[in-house]
Amino acid sequence: MSNVNKVVLAYSGGLDTSVIVRWLQDTYDCEVVTFTADIGQGEEVEPARAKAEALGVREIYIDDLKEEFVRDFVFPMFRANTIYEGEYLLGTSIARPLIAKRLVEIANETGADAISHGATGKGNDQIRFELGAYALKPGIQVIAPWREWDLNSRESLMAYCAERDIPVDFSNASKKSPYSMDANLLHISYEGGVLEDPWCPPEESMWRWSVSPEEAPELGHELTLTFERGDVVAIDGEAMSPATVLAYLNQVGGAHGVGRLDIVENRYVGMKSRGCYETPGGTILLRAHRAIESITLDREVAHLKDELMPRYAKLIYNGYWWAPERLMLQTAIDESQSVVNGDVRVRLYKGNVTVTGRRSADTLFDDAIATFEDDAGKYDQADAEGFIKLNALRLRIAAERGRSALGD
Amino acid sequence: MSNVNKVVLAYSGGLDTSVIVRWLQDTYDCEVVTFTADIGQGEEVEPARAKAEALGVREIYIDDLKEEFVRDFVFPMFRANTIYEGEYLLGTSIARPLIAKRLVEIANETGADAISHGATGKGNDQIRFELGAYALKPGIQVIAPWREWDLNSRESLMAYCAERDIPVDFSNASKKSPYSMDANLLHISYEGGVLEDPWCPPEESMWRWSVSPEEAPELGHELTLTFERGDVVAIDGEAMSPATVLAYLNQVGGAHGVGRLDIVENRYVGMKSRGCYETPGGTILLRAHRAIESITLDREVAHLKDELMPRYAKLIYNGYWWAPERLMLQTAIDESQSVVNGDVRVRLYKGNVTVTGRRSADTLFDDAIATFEDDAGKYDQADAEGFIKLNALRLRIAAERGRSALGD
Amino acid sequence: MSNVNKVVLAYSGGLDTSVIVRWLQDTYDCEVVTFTADIGQGEEVEPARAKAEALGVREIYIDDLKEEFVRDFVFPMFRANTIYEGEYLLGTSIARPLIAKRLVEIANETGADAISHGATGKGNDQIRFELGAYALKPGIQVIAPWREWDLNSRESLMAYCAERDIPVDFSNASKKSPYSMDANLLHISYEGGVLEDPWCPPEESMWRWSVSPEEAPELGHELTLTFERGDVVAIDGEAMSPATVLAYLNQVGGAHGVGRLDIVENRYVGMKSRGCYETPGGTILLRAHRAIESITLDREVAHLKDELMPRYAKLIYNGYWWAPERLMLQTAIDESQSVVNGDVRVRLYKGNVTVTGRRSADTLFDDAIATFEDDAGKYDQADAEGFIKLNALRLRIAAERGRSALGD
Amino acid sequence: MSNVNKVVLAYSGGLDTSVIVRWLQDTYDCEVVTFTADIGQGEEVEPARAKAEALGVREIYIDDLKEEFVRDFVFPMFRANTIYEGEYLLGTSIARPLIAKRLVEIANETGADAISHGATGKGNDQIRFELGAYALKPGIQVIAPWREWDLNSRESLMAYCAERDIPVDFSNASKKSPYSMDANLLHISYEGGVLEDPWCPPEESMWRWSVSPEEAPELGHELTLTFERGDVVAIDGEAMSPATVLAYLNQVGGAHGVGRLDIVENRYVGMKSRGCYETPGGTILLRAHRAIESITLDREVAHLKDELMPRYAKLIYNGYWWAPERLMLQTAIDESQSVVNGDVRVRLYKGNVTVTGRRSADTLFDDAIATFEDDAGKYDQADAEGFIKLNALRLRIAAERGRSALGD
Repeated sequence: MSNVNKVVLAYSGGLDTSVIVRWLQDTYDCEVVTFTADIGQGEEVEPARAKAEALGVREIYIDDLKEEFVRDFVFPMFRANTIYEGEYLLGTSIARPLIAKRLVEIANETGADAISHGATGKGNDQIRFELGAYALKPGIQVIAPWREWDLNSRESLMAYCAERDIPVDFSNASKKSPYSMDANLLHISYEGGVLEDPWCPPEESMWRWSVSPEEAPELGHELTLTFERGDVVAIDGEAMSPATVLAYLNQVGGAHGVGRLDIVENRYVGMKSRGCYETPGGTILLRAHRAIESITLDREVAHLKDELMPRYAKLIYNGYWWAPERLMLQTAIDESQSVVNGDVRVRLYKGNVTVTGRRSADTLFDDAIATFEDDAGKYDQADAEGFIKLNALRLRIAAERGRSALGD
Repeated sequence: MSNVNKVVLAYSGGLDTSVIVRWLQDTYDCEVVTFTADIGQGEEVEPARAKAEALGVREIYIDDLKEEFVRDFVFPMFRANTIYEGEYLLGTSIARPLIAKRLVEIANETGADAISHGATGKGNDQIRFELGAYALKPGIQVIAPWREWDLNSRESLMAYCAERDIPVDFSNASKKSPYSMDANLLHISYEGGVLEDPWCPPEESMWRWSVSPEEAPELGHELTLTFERGDVVAIDGEAMSPATVLAYLNQVGGAHGVGRLDIVENRYVGMKSRGCYETPGGTILLRAHRAIESITLDREVAHLKDELMPRYAKLIYNGYWWAPERLMLQTAIDESQSVVNGDVRVRLYKGNVTVTGRRSADTLFDDAIATFEDDAGKYDQADAEGFIKLNALRLRIAAERGRSALGD
Repeated sequence: MSNVNKVVLAYSGGLDTSVIVRWLQDTYDCEVVTFTADIGQGEEVEPARAKAEALGVREIYIDDLKEEFVRDFVFPMFRANTIYEGEYLLGTSIARPLIAKRLVEIANETGADAISHGATGKGNDQIRFELGAYALKPGIQVIAPWREWDLNSRESLMAYCAERDIPVDFSNASKKSPYSMDANLLHISYEGGVLEDPWCPPEESMWRWSVSPEEAPELGHELTLTFERGDVVAIDGEAMSPATVLAYLNQVGGAHGVGRLDIVENRYVGMKSRGCYETPGGTILLRAHRAIESITLDREVAHLKDELMPRYAKLIYNGYWWAPERLMLQTAIDESQSVVNGDVRVRLYKGNVTVTGRRSADTLFDDAIATFEDDAGKYDQADAEGFIKLNALRLRIAAERGRSALGD
Repeated sequence: MSNVNKVVLAYSGGLDTSVIVRWLQDTYDCEVVTFTADIGQGEEVEPARAKAEALGVREIYIDDLKEEFVRDFVFPMFRANTIYEGEYLLGTSIARPLIAKRLVEIANETGADAISHGATGKGNDQIRFELGAYALKPGIQVIAPWREWDLNSRESLMAYCAERDIPVDFSNASKKSPYSMDANLLHISYEGGVLEDPWCPPEESMWRWSVSPEEAPELGHELTLTFERGDVVAIDGEAMSPATVLAYLNQVGGAHGVGRLDIVENRYVGMKSRGCYETPGGTILLRAHRAIESITLDREVAHLKDELMPRYAKLIYNGYWWAPERLMLQTAIDESQSVVNGDVRVRLYKGNVTVTGRRSADTLFDDAIATFEDDAGKYDQADAEGFIKLNALRLRIAAERGRSALGD
């Protein structure tokens, strides 16, 4: 057991992390600092204060990080049209580096020599927390109780609470969802329970943030998103802060059945796992961002971004937000966004997000060239012959040497 | 004017290519061979015979290529989860190399020294036809009338017909759609007209293959696709040929409002253009293929495929189907698909394609490991610590040298 | 013939471009502005003034661009360890965008409406000049005489001169090298003549900048390069400007037989061509830059750079220096170089460049960890087990499902 | 301590692995099977038999794997022009998967339930052995004594031998090189000792396989390598087996001072380490393979290979030879090599490998097109204008919108 004097714990106020507070105190004989963040998970964070106090915690941090979360993490990620494995919008992944950063900052402020978290030893989150912490404060110690203790079931946790007089609302705890959930302003996720069979669809009752497309209103909803440098800065003409943008899109998207996802994904630790996600606002953002890029980005810049994206997504998924290669990619991505300005009109209807218009002062769409009508000499069709001939030259030379697929 | 004796023309039987037949005869004083293919565009091809005969054509080829099209072009492309610029399923692009191949084969059979097509000098299709032709028969000549003649409007084409007694159904020609369209078993596309303004949504009347989500039935439809080596071989337990699979998915997808797309894309010739597409079956195929891969493919193979995909998509979009780098990539993609076997259940509802289950004898999903419950020792959570520590080592060393983002 | 009033010509003062001056005057009835740059080709540029005056040119630009060339083009390129097709250091390619930029600047200053150059229609240089010009001044006209005129041999050029009283030093012209050459501070290149047979080695007499390894001194030479942000700023402790660095390395490298290259490369126009190159200083720079990066760059940043490099090299080779995707990549590359500081010691001996030491205040090499001796607990070997186990997990799961290569 | 009945040990016959035999017997109370391979390390393997017998080993495997090593591992790797971090030819990395495979095969034959090796917990080799073993036999146990025991110095090992009467030739052991070395037919490597300071050059006495360039003969040596499908099958017209090719090139290359390398590399475990390598034959192979590819490979295939190579190299370096993503890449690489046939002439002189000719029946080099002389109409220079114009179109449109770097 390494020597720990003070540890900063990412504390939700729930059963698990309440047990961790006491377990850290008992096991390491150390002081525990709790840190509870509002990143838009939709639950009050202030109640965590009284719970922490009841556990004897003297240094309690409760932060509203919603704006920082969207401005410095979610928005930069969406500039890359980031999707993991073709489907997942990285809602959980992108929140972890912010938590890691705050844990380290609080450790620096309070003189703590360790941090702790409630993530298990099978998942990605332990990696995201710890890679972040090590990258930001290399000498920090990390305590991951789920990898150390033998409290491997809900029952043993509750027994531990009873034994140690840990004040937990058992009525609340016992009626807990059968799913393991995680929420922030970008998404809510579900794992476990019946989802452990990939052939089994999720129960309708599982979903919390969105109605099903079937239950969504018959009347669709149209909205216009205004982008500046790749980020949404206004909706329907009204300027909004980053967190307000995302909260608004979640609300309206969820109401129209937008953003449900049910996938099997590959975890960094080497296993496949089933996850269901609700990302209403993010789903709208992604479609709209691609649409504004479609008229403002140079073709080759867009293609380069598309080729780099899977790698960038993997870095975020695997917990390398604070790694230099992510920063290097971000620099390139951000550089591309200075021209990504303008409006996108989208229509929401029963789960569908349909782009119905895009316009920009920075558009590269030149209808005078693209037109099927007379282009007044802006494009010389004869150029195409030389273009094709030289692009074909290597193929023709090879075919002359007998490499044609038809063997001519 | 180069010396051409006989030219094989990709002939639709419509106004434009009928004019081309006569224009080739007149301009090159050569014999014209017409080739008309049924690739699932949904129009009769047999009437092209009489039209060609009326134009004095003696060698007339009319082929049903639907099975070859889906088996050898569409399905291989979908093995890569191919999407161009994040949205476009390449419906037009993938049909062109097949046409190019048949034009060359017919040139070989008939002793023709040239091929011709009705694509304009501004688009991608001229490139796809011609790169294919040059790669398969390097000495072939290509005649692209739209790059040569001065018949630059519908009116001048009709005047040309009148002048030369070309038998065109003017009543039909004059009520032509305001859009430039292209159709095959994978999709139908629309360009031009009001679409030349990217801020202007398409008219509902434009769409031909699908109902709008609003008009789709209240009752969804569930179906199970069976994959073998990455291709769908049965639907709801019924074995089907490739073309039958795609036709069936188009029909049921279109009926449920699935597969409409409205984008601005980057053409190979350097301009941006607006296109609308209906790809009902392809949209279902893509989602289902990703789902079956999600449980059967190794993680790193899947990620490698994701990183190569944009490049592979670009090759197809730009017309390099018959180029050796496409074949090299295809070899790798196909190699990955031997394990992509199993069933995917999807639900169609008002434009939505929702995956509700996937199962496979080749699954790598191991619920005994992934479970939140007791895994009976199949996974040692303690391993995660060493995994994280060594993955963090380079970050920690760098941070110790002062490279932490927090400057600690 | 388009309407041109004034054209800026990249003028060397040699036979070809002297003919072009007169040909432009005659053919386009326009004023010609000459631009002659010293980019370290090793020939006097001032004599071009009298030659231009003799041809009736009134606006004559003669610029020393050596520092700008190395600082803004060569050095940024070397930050990426750029090599085309595994061998070529891009000596010609990297000079063209600078010439294109000056041509456009001079066109702006003189009110010219066109530029012209002496590159042929088969090579890469026409593309590099013209893509640069179009990217920097989209309305510019480009006149490429070699693609237009019928003066296709040396003899016809000389006849043209004689006919028009163009003052050419025929004695000099007639003893011209059998090779087509291009030189600047980074390299000198040779094409044509006996090199057109790839089985035929170059004659020893061809090489101009270096002795052969056989003729190099018996005694090697050691030197220490000091890097700041990826660029060499001093040699053997003496601060030097970029151009001085490169000139010095060329001199000492060439004296020791360093930097000869003989390859077949793939041109952008689709053909393969044989080229021989002397790049003494660049060869040293590349090895030394990799060496300083080896101790200062993060592993994943280095690997990302290595994966992006071939694409970056291709962009430069193909003439896309001024394209936005090159700028996007450059931003990422430059961002990585802030830590690339320190010294590299290299030894030159008869064609060999051997790195014999590297050190840096920004080193990430930690001998206390890497040591085979006792590391005082800085690295816990037990961590490796978990690291390997989790990296192996996906492989083990797959093998359990029968995917082992041994079929166990 | 897990329950192990029989373990197969990669046994060199040296001090370390002899200690491991006894330590395994004592610690696990298990039977030890030794496996000693001749992979061209240049030492007799047969003496290992007596040593193993003296240690009480009853099942002793001694295999000559030289041909399999070169044919199935080295040659496939060289088809990709594989280099790790721009310099390292992966000599150690490529031997490990073969050893892993044989360990597993012997475990299967002998009914062993574990394998063991003598690699330390800081290096890459443990990973390469173990990832291979797990991928080939998922239920295998791995015992890595260096990660378990406390015999952390040479002295403690020798004390262990003395204590247990392990028959070691102490006179030999004590005069051991100060470097940690590894050798096989591809290379010999050196780590540790004075090399732990990256500023310190290696001592001349360290090198074993090559003379220094200074000591190499004054007279160079020319040889012709014949390739079939990317592999060398003959030298100077004499057909040779793969291992013979490599042995011959090592001998002649080493005699001419070819193939020394001194680098700092990034290990998979996260640290940087200094290594020196002698790879005479591999250095020649790489240059020659690139040369034969330069005339036989399509440009875009070559570029695709170049872009994939760093990733492929990283997979081999990190130990993923037996992983499906390596196999997928190999399929693509091998597919590209069917045309890589022909001769390459190289000249060796005092450390230099100079390509002086390449020829092939599959050449794509077309001197009739590339020539500076009259090409008899095989290439129409006028095509270049259209080629450039359309490649420039996106740049011109952007510049017209004010995106020129000069601000036009």
